[in-house]
Amino acid sequence: MDIVEITREIIDIGNLTTRVTSPTCGAISTFLGTTRNNFQGKKVKTLEYEAYEPMAKKEMQKICDNIRDKWSVENIALVHRIGDVPITQASVAIVVSSPHRKESLEAVQYGIDTLKATVPIWKKEIYEDDSYSWKENSECCEI
Amino acid sequence: MDIVEITREIIDIGNLTTRVTSPTCGAISTFLGTTRNNFQGKKVKTLEYEAYEPMAKKEMQKICDNIRDKWSVENIALVHRIGDVPITQASVAIVVSSPHRKESLEAVQYGIDTLKATVPIWKKEIYEDDSYSWKENSECCEI
Repeated sequence: MDIVEITREIIDIGNLTTRVTSPTCGAISTFLGTTRNNFQGKKVKTLEYEAYEPMAKKEMQKICDNIRDKWSVENIALVHRIGDVPITQASVAIVVSSPHRKESLEAVQYGIDTLKATVPIWKKEIYEDDSYSWKENSECCEI
Repeated sequence: MDIVEITREIIDIGNLTTRVTSPTCGAISTFLGTTRNNFQGKKVKTLEYEAYEPMAKKEMQKICDNIRDKWSVENIALVHRIGDVPITQASVAIVVSSPHRKESLEAVQYGIDTLKATVPIWKKEIYEDDSYSWKENSECCEI
């Protein structure tokens, strides 16, 4: 099962893990990208994400398909939050279950690397002095 | 901060993630080892883990220390459940936060590989026909 979602709500990692859990699996690997309080020496107040949703979901689904081509995994969740994402909260979650650990660990690493490179999501970094800058996802090296 | 725990309770991954979260981090990576319903063609009913706790915690702390020698990470949680662990529930959780994603992803993979190899925890596989076998952690290839 693939879960591909874009949401404006807090990502509930406990709930997402439960949805990906399978009785045939011995492993669940997860990556969360969280808002950090600093970027290149500047204090960050919050992040704001925007997406062209149909295209973003299409690219996220492609990542799931590619994972299934490469590894034997059971369930995959790719969730991206948009709108304001305050410090310490997650903007992106990737959760993968697999019978054996190697597959889900590798799939999660591939998933976040590819999501950063291909999914059209823009990020506004808002600094403590209320200045800001917009960046494409692929330019964001904070995670 | 290092969290090193052995517990007989259900591992609450939402709570553990919150404890590892840091405002200075953009990444949280997690591995969960869960009880699978089959092993080498046999149907598994449940798993039962036992540990020599002082030694197991010492080895788990060593894994945290080694992670800190190798990668720049913020918080590490290594939690192993003992006693009965029913199908789909987690026996082990490794959660690592880091400023950038590469570090926590690599640290989690190292953590589970090393835990399987070095931590003295034994596992009783109880099959559907009520037969069972005891194994050392390092012999368990189910995850």
